[in-house]
Amino acid sequence: MPEPRVYVALVHYPVINKEGKIIASSVTNLDIHDISRICRTYGAKAYYIVQPLREQRELVKELIEYWQNGYGRVYNPDREDALKILKVVPALKVALDEIARKEGRVPLLLGTDAREKYANISFARARELVWSGEVILLLLGTAWGLAPKLIEACPYVLEPIRGRGNNYNHLSVRAAAAIILDRLLGESWWKRI
Amino acid sequence: MPEPRVYVALVHYPVINKEGKIIASSVTNLDIHDISRICRTYGAKAYYIVQPLREQRELVKELIEYWQNGYGRVYNPDREDALKILKVVPALKVALDEIARKEGRVPLLLGTDAREKYANISFARARELVWSGEVILLLLGTAWGLAPKLIEACPYVLEPIRGRGNNYNHLSVRAAAAIILDRLLGESWWKRI
Repeated sequence: MPEPRVYVALVHYPVINKEGKIIASSVTNLDIHDISRICRTYGAKAYYIVQPLREQRELVKELIEYWQNGYGRVYNPDREDALKILKVVPALKVALDEIARKEGRVPLLLGTDAREKYANISFARARELVWSGEVILLLLGTAWGLAPKLIEACPYVLEPIRGRGNNYNHLSVRAAAAIILDRLLGESWWKRI
Repeated sequence: MPEPRVYVALVHYPVINKEGKIIASSVTNLDIHDISRICRTYGAKAYYIVQPLREQRELVKELIEYWQNGYGRVYNPDREDALKILKVVPALKVALDEIARKEGRVPLLLGTDAREKYANISFARARELVWSGEVILLLLGTAWGLAPKLIEACPYVLEPIRGRGNNYNHLSVRAAAAIILDRLLGESWWKRI
């Protein structure tokens, strides 16, 4: 079975705000740590933070510096380890180009959205795609989610996480990232049911 | 099929620090929001924050007040909705007694730990237990995890989340909560594989 080649991007632009307007969102400290650790646990090839604002990118780099070379490294080396796969880029295009150079082909964009309207691939089918060795870039949106024009540019948009089907569907992007990577890349724990 | 009766407790005491000493940890703002939203999404009956320090409990109550009655309610009503199932208690015993009164029986303690050494139940078997209607209190540890004496008092301790089996096993408690509730209570998405 080919090795999965999944990349993850946390998109801060273009995303929408509560009113549906396109914005550039701010970086959240725990999005960096939690999602790095999730990506590292599930063997994602790299975790891109897409952030167009220079000051915001500098903030992320300072944080990485602290955990990789400052006191953080001594205090908690597991965080340094997870942050090795993190990259900060000004635009999604930069991540796409980097992956294409490394893999020899442009990654397939796998969009995500909390609503049903854009979904065109099930978790089951997406897992098969991942394990077929296809190069995939999973897009996660901050704020109120990925901008419609970006979702519409994705050949695949993952079905939403439905929980217990009680119509409450407001997971944080950190929780959604954990569940999505567990479903796509995790061990087949359900085979023992 | 009986309705699952799963309760969740985020334990701040007794947990261990990096050196393995028993401590009371501090509350993390995003543990409150993220895990409330996860519990609400997956239909957990209640989410207990177990915190022995009075000042820390007051902090959590102020935060709940902001989202339920302050400006937060207007700005983001989905958070208010999620926080309805959150309760702050000074000790695990208080949560146990409350659940016992409500359900007519003492809940079965389901412990969690990132290491293999205490594990005695698989996710597959734990899911069956959950869907048999057993009253269950899932214990999540903050800091470096639940104190050994507490884990040893649990009749069941869940197997660790293994990710891709690459020996990196340092998920945040928020990410672990998301994955565990998805596996125990989520839809059977893998049936379409």
